[in-house]
Amino acid sequence: MTEPWPHLLPTEPRVVNIGLEGFARDLAGLGVPVVHVDWRPPAHGNVRLAELLSRLEARREQIERANAEACRRLTGGEAVLVDCRPAREAFDLPDHLVLHAGPPLGWTAMCEPMRAAALGAIRYEGWAPDDDAAARLIERQEVQLAPCHHWGAVGPMTGIITASMPVFVVENRAYGNRAYATINEGLGKVLRFGANDASVVARLQWLAAEAGPLLGAALRASGGIDLRPLMAQALRMGDEMHQRNIAASALLARALMPHLAHASANTATLAPVAEFMAGHDQFFLNLAMAAGKALTDPANGVEHSTLVTTMARNGTDFGIRVSAHGERWFTAPVNVPNGLYFPGFGPDDANPDMGDSAIVETIGLGGSAMAASPAVAQFLGMGGMAEALRVTAEIREICVGEHPNFRIPLLDEQGTPIGIDLRPVIETGITPLINTGIAGCKAGTGQIGAGTVRAPFACFARALEAFFE
Amino acid sequence: MTEPWPHLLPTEPRVVNIGLEGFARDLAGLGVPVVHVDWRPPAHGNVRLAELLSRLEARREQIERANAEACRRLTGGEAVLVDCRPAREAFDLPDHLVLHAGPPLGWTAMCEPMRAAALGAIRYEGWAPDDDAAARLIERQEVQLAPCHHWGAVGPMTGIITASMPVFVVENRAYGNRAYATINEGLGKVLRFGANDASVVARLQWLAAEAGPLLGAALRASGGIDLRPLMAQALRMGDEMHQRNIAASALLARALMPHLAHASANTATLAPVAEFMAGHDQFFLNLAMAAGKALTDPANGVEHSTLVTTMARNGTDFGIRVSAHGERWFTAPVNVPNGLYFPGFGPDDANPDMGDSAIVETIGLGGSAMAASPAVAQFLGMGGMAEALRVTAEIREICVGEHPNFRIPLLDEQGTPIGIDLRPVIETGITPLINTGIAGCKAGTGQIGAGTVRAPFACFARALEAFFE
Repeated sequence: MTEPWPHLLPTEPRVVNIGLEGFARDLAGLGVPVVHVDWRPPAHGNVRLAELLSRLEARREQIERANAEACRRLTGGEAVLVDCRPAREAFDLPDHLVLHAGPPLGWTAMCEPMRAAALGAIRYEGWAPDDDAAARLIERQEVQLAPCHHWGAVGPMTGIITASMPVFVVENRAYGNRAYATINEGLGKVLRFGANDASVVARLQWLAAEAGPLLGAALRASGGIDLRPLMAQALRMGDEMHQRNIAASALLARALMPHLAHASANTATLAPVAEFMAGHDQFFLNLAMAAGKALTDPANGVEHSTLVTTMARNGTDFGIRVSAHGERWFTAPVNVPNGLYFPGFGPDDANPDMGDSAIVETIGLGGSAMAASPAVAQFLGMGGMAEALRVTAEIREICVGEHPNFRIPLLDEQGTPIGIDLRPVIETGITPLINTGIAGCKAGTGQIGAGTVRAPFACFARALEAFFE
Repeated sequence: MTEPWPHLLPTEPRVVNIGLEGFARDLAGLGVPVVHVDWRPPAHGNVRLAELLSRLEARREQIERANAEACRRLTGGEAVLVDCRPAREAFDLPDHLVLHAGPPLGWTAMCEPMRAAALGAIRYEGWAPDDDAAARLIERQEVQLAPCHHWGAVGPMTGIITASMPVFVVENRAYGNRAYATINEGLGKVLRFGANDASVVARLQWLAAEAGPLLGAALRASGGIDLRPLMAQALRMGDEMHQRNIAASALLARALMPHLAHASANTATLAPVAEFMAGHDQFFLNLAMAAGKALTDPANGVEHSTLVTTMARNGTDFGIRVSAHGERWFTAPVNVPNGLYFPGFGPDDANPDMGDSAIVETIGLGGSAMAASPAVAQFLGMGGMAEALRVTAEIREICVGEHPNFRIPLLDEQGTPIGIDLRPVIETGITPLINTGIAGCKAGTGQIGAGTVRAPFACFARALEAFFE
């Protein structure tokens, strides 16, 4: 231990650094003990937001009661996978309607991959023979566009759903509501990343003709697969259920197989479905999303509650919904993810973030559960476990509670952070972190990497303003 | 910061405590900074062993070259699951021979659960109509006993194998050798924990008549399931593959299902096997053991090598084998596990430790990989993650290397400790830690808990002596 200024000070200096980290780093580099306080001005230094936040203090008790109720609903749901059937049967989705991920947006505002996926879906449905004809249908509004969320559904990336696509049905048995998501197509050329060639359409046709009906028959006969314990188990196995779903996919495949065997007329119909599930580590993603939708919907619409009940992106905008404001969207331009790219690709090739999949971060999974998923921490180049632990600890700062079922063994069974509260987001400037795939910005490129993205602060600022309208 | 003796010492005292931890604890309790050195006298303070160890120093280079070669073989194997067929076909196991776990021991030295399992197996084979007749066959040596390990096989707990039981066949494709283990029966009343009633025998018959043949046909048609990447993946999912095998079991079930579907004549034959695998989180244990046997065998018999290539228990003795000494066993009385008991049971009801399953600790899994399995750390009541990390770090002290494939994401991809070296075991007194199930000591009780057990130091001391014969 050196004593650098023995004559100037009676003891060694003890430095507390507040705010800018650079000063602390410099001192630490010189071997001076320094305690850094990560202080930032409230509300990003925005005086108006800081003032709104302090006005909200007057309603504090009311808000906290409302948030407790919303959080109780958010954590008290029971998501059960009960069926798989075409969207037109599952939730009366009409023809000539294309559902997409994220908040509402018009055709001309859509990014290339989402447009390409929409056109592919129109060809798959047989509403148009080629992309040009399909585009004309949309331009003439003979085919309409709407967010999945407006139909009780969720879709990853482009999130396209049309009437004849089979969707999983997840029922929240505690509240009686249902949510829907398509069957995940696998990796490679897939509609959700904006690929739409003949191979993509052929896979969609196989899912509708073979996989969907068999999965549906098996699920109906099973009496339902309870997803909450399965997801809690998968979390213990390193899935955060956004980037990584291998455990949940394998557990589900294992649980479904006896029911699939009973439901199959013969082994020839079963084998291709078993093969599809055996090779598909992200199979469960869409189910985690449908579970997320089923679990968050009852928490929406609680008067005075400042909890975030939806986060979704459409490749152009990021949108959130806040419990007190019900179905209303608060949007801002979406960010481009930071992450690792497949060989030959880089940030210039990346589409801004897309997909309804951020619903899983709303229920304490994905980026919120990074500490449960060391393998994802590595994959995302995030600085390993230390960074993963830091992320989950940071998300706790903007959440009202811990999930009673989604527990992290590494943290000696502490629950994941749940119930994102608008107020600390505004106060600290910390916005939710979302684990995500990265799509190429050119149609047909498909996935080019994976990473993380922050929800834009402006969505939350807008939602705060709405409390004073 | 206080300065307790400003006039006695020019600076604050800096204390280094060596050996007994109590002094350090007392000082720390008084707020005095203290560095504790966890020093213990070499070789448990045994002067003779310390002397042998120092004589071994003269052969150091030779030994380290040999250990490097043995470790290369231990980590370079490729374990592929290729078949499932009756033991009599798989490795020519004759009738009237009962294989058991652990080092050799006679009938009268066997613990109650192992005897009960042996008698049950004799009834299952139809060699005797009841337990009394079965016992007479053994007493007259009309039925012989032998360790599984002597036949290239391994068995969990009692480890009983007889000729008509189907066994999985794991081939080490890098070295051409094969190893064998039965199909794990599941939980509840099972032969491996010493239950032997009609339900136990009926399950064994079903395994032989239905599950075994179908699994065998599926595996032969599959061309083999490569277990090393599957096990590496399962380790990333929190399985240490001794206490916890849920990830490996689910991954294997998912991978096998398409092959099972193709191999089944109809869905009615498939469904019960799919159900058996779906409900069975320890299904993979026996495969991890067979893989362990297939991977360790080539590392045995390397002249001068001090690496431990086998650890096994028979409920009476713990036995190890050391590479330089080939097939020779070094045994000592086995310990009773520490752990958690099912309701109604306690340490007085526990049988001393049993089973060939400690082979997984020999290949860097089980207790050696505790840091990869936070859920097991909790389950074993070990003081949570901090203790799990400590255990794996401690095992590193007695190992020569890190496994190149079995990596722990939580430790930023560090490999598990591999290659237990006799010399540091003697020097430090640290013996391998084994995760284990606890059997009731009365026949028919079955499993009563789970915990950990230390390999007895005396085995290692005997193996050291053998280097000077």
